[in-house]
Amino acid sequence: MAYLNENFLKLKAGYLFPEVARRVKVFCEKNPQVASRVIRCGIGDVTEPLPPAVIAAMHKAVDEMSKRETFRGYGPEQGYEFLRSAIAQNDYRDRGIDIADDEIFVSDGSKCDCGNILDILGNKNKIAISDPVYPVYVDTNVMAGNTGDADETGAYKGIVYLPCTKENGFVPRPPRRKVDIIYLCSPNNPTGAVLNKEQLTEWVQYALKNKSIILYDAAYESYITEPGIPHSIFEIPGAKECAIEFRSFSKNGGFTGVRCAFTVMPKALLASTKKGEFKPLHPLWYRRMTTKFNGVSYITQRAAEALYTPEGKQQVRDLINHYLGNAKILAEGIRASGLEVYGGVNAPYLWVKAPEGYTSWQAFDHILEKANLVVTPGSGFGSQGEGYFRVSSYNSRQNAIEAAERFRNLKW
Amino acid sequence: MAYLNENFLKLKAGYLFPEVARRVKVFCEKNPQVASRVIRCGIGDVTEPLPPAVIAAMHKAVDEMSKRETFRGYGPEQGYEFLRSAIAQNDYRDRGIDIADDEIFVSDGSKCDCGNILDILGNKNKIAISDPVYPVYVDTNVMAGNTGDADETGAYKGIVYLPCTKENGFVPRPPRRKVDIIYLCSPNNPTGAVLNKEQLTEWVQYALKNKSIILYDAAYESYITEPGIPHSIFEIPGAKECAIEFRSFSKNGGFTGVRCAFTVMPKALLASTKKGEFKPLHPLWYRRMTTKFNGVSYITQRAAEALYTPEGKQQVRDLINHYLGNAKILAEGIRASGLEVYGGVNAPYLWVKAPEGYTSWQAFDHILEKANLVVTPGSGFGSQGEGYFRVSSYNSRQNAIEAAERFRNLKW
Repeated sequence: MAYLNENFLKLKAGYLFPEVARRVKVFCEKNPQVASRVIRCGIGDVTEPLPPAVIAAMHKAVDEMSKRETFRGYGPEQGYEFLRSAIAQNDYRDRGIDIADDEIFVSDGSKCDCGNILDILGNKNKIAISDPVYPVYVDTNVMAGNTGDADETGAYKGIVYLPCTKENGFVPRPPRRKVDIIYLCSPNNPTGAVLNKEQLTEWVQYALKNKSIILYDAAYESYITEPGIPHSIFEIPGAKECAIEFRSFSKNGGFTGVRCAFTVMPKALLASTKKGEFKPLHPLWYRRMTTKFNGVSYITQRAAEALYTPEGKQQVRDLINHYLGNAKILAEGIRASGLEVYGGVNAPYLWVKAPEGYTSWQAFDHILEKANLVVTPGSGFGSQGEGYFRVSSYNSRQNAIEAAERFRNLKW
Repeated sequence: MAYLNENFLKLKAGYLFPEVARRVKVFCEKNPQVASRVIRCGIGDVTEPLPPAVIAAMHKAVDEMSKRETFRGYGPEQGYEFLRSAIAQNDYRDRGIDIADDEIFVSDGSKCDCGNILDILGNKNKIAISDPVYPVYVDTNVMAGNTGDADETGAYKGIVYLPCTKENGFVPRPPRRKVDIIYLCSPNNPTGAVLNKEQLTEWVQYALKNKSIILYDAAYESYITEPGIPHSIFEIPGAKECAIEFRSFSKNGGFTGVRCAFTVMPKALLASTKKGEFKPLHPLWYRRMTTKFNGVSYITQRAAEALYTPEGKQQVRDLINHYLGNAKILAEGIRASGLEVYGGVNAPYLWVKAPEGYTSWQAFDHILEKANLVVTPGSGFGSQGEGYFRVSSYNSRQNAIEAAERFRNLKW
């Protein structure tokens, strides 16, 4: 008799984005006259085409695959050396961070990496996760059996939630109790908040003291504009002994439909057996990736490599400036309507406090009905997100200007 | 204190292909005068370029990604409808097998799928695996904690090994004892053996009777040439209640470097909770894929779709004929030297019995030294592979002819 993984049955059925899509659909069916007027400021997906340097690199790689002499079959599971080396050099060594090429593992997405990393971690770990946050961290821990059931607020037993509130500037602080695995996301999805050097140092020191591991999601790193904000956790002394970093090409190169990301797994990082013997995680991750993964498409890896050329870098900068420009326009419109707006300076997301008396979903419905704009309800990211909503800057400039204008005129 | 997954420490360090590579390297360094003469008949990677229909589809998709109007960001995690529907129609419904589009889950590789499927299965299952077989089935079960330690022969406690020997035609038969999860691979890697309709029916009946699940790896389906051999387990009545099928574009379209595959997860398939309540696995796999995966590159999915056009189908047929032609040539050369050869008719692999007194590795070394050919030692696929070696037909015609000639003249 085959058994299923019962941990899946603990997951709540209604995932955030399907429910958003459902409500938008119902609204458009009931109000066909304004359906074409609806602007989506919800899901965090890029809207602008791939940079020209990437397009050229992909055409070239496709042509290589068409000839016997230049055809490539299986590549190294952990990524081609040309890409690992471009990443380690440009994102780390050129910034004074000593990361070796073989500490970079190329993958098909940060979502995958954030979930798969649990494969190499034990089942006795106490897990700490910011609230609100990208739902994948929590859900993958539920699936892996690292939690109990959800309570009536949707919080899972066994997880230590780190509240990120207006009072702490949406930046989680180390808890008094000991935790073993800590998820940090900076720049943060959904709040747009960033950890500064002091705050991140505090976390690294906590992790070193408690022999914990920080899973550092820096998928939005390229949106950091303020000086002094760490772009990598490995800027902090000691981090190579206590952190794994996740990065992605989704939001800088616009690769959400192309699929490429990477993990930085330092060789100095150790974790414990039940008997208290410490061993490096790098060989485990290497074994995991070579056994359960077969590498990223050669064409995609050449595309990612092109982001590190001088033209590629400039084109990425232009894309980021486009989205951050949208964020500025949207933030001004929303602020003009009297609402409090956070984020948007080092991140593509605005985190907005709904007026008193509105839940996240009530604000969502109100904005959809009155302004025909789609936002993301903050409560979908955790209980501390209740009363907030997220506005994404992934849009055309024209849509951003129009959406800002509608926010400005929106009555509550 | 962060804990690691100790199951990884049970894995044997030396993986088959790295050891092959090491010995070839040592040989070439010691014998530089023949290094350029070495022909690799080892790893199962395609050598011929992508079909022209695929190249054209990829160029077109790359161009779509270069324009705002046709750019695609995140796609559906489970695959675009255009591809799921092409698969379900061509590989199943056109062959009289009733599979719905939404029972197809597109992924980046069968290796990934075969490993990831364990995410949705419980940890109380008794696992049965053919011996010899593709090492990924065993290794992923070790990582998931479904086994004990390995014994001195390399067999893991807790796994029920199904011996595939000359005596049973390399086809595993259902065991007397009850098992919960069964891995079958047909056409088989490494033996090239196939299950006929009767043999597969016997397995389906066993699984239905015991409420077991068959994980059916049909990655080499397109190499089947003999009539009456099932191309899909779903040709067998009742299989939708007891089987999951894995397919890949790696070995038909030559996608080993492009990465695309799929899983067929029938909605009728149930598995049990510990309390004995049966629930469908389809929603669990859907949840797994939408939470821990972000879909396959749009460009790659358009490439896979092109394999189902009339030109694409003909080009795939040409590729398969090329490799099977190599297999025939190689088999003749090896047989002429007096060795017993199996497989190669419905599969790209030959399974060769080494002369009496030779272990797999001794045969490997002998063939490398005397004929400068690289084969794969059978013992690397399991203890029942001892005394055999695998010869792959993935090569140019010229190399296949030359390798066959060297086998023919090889003295033992």
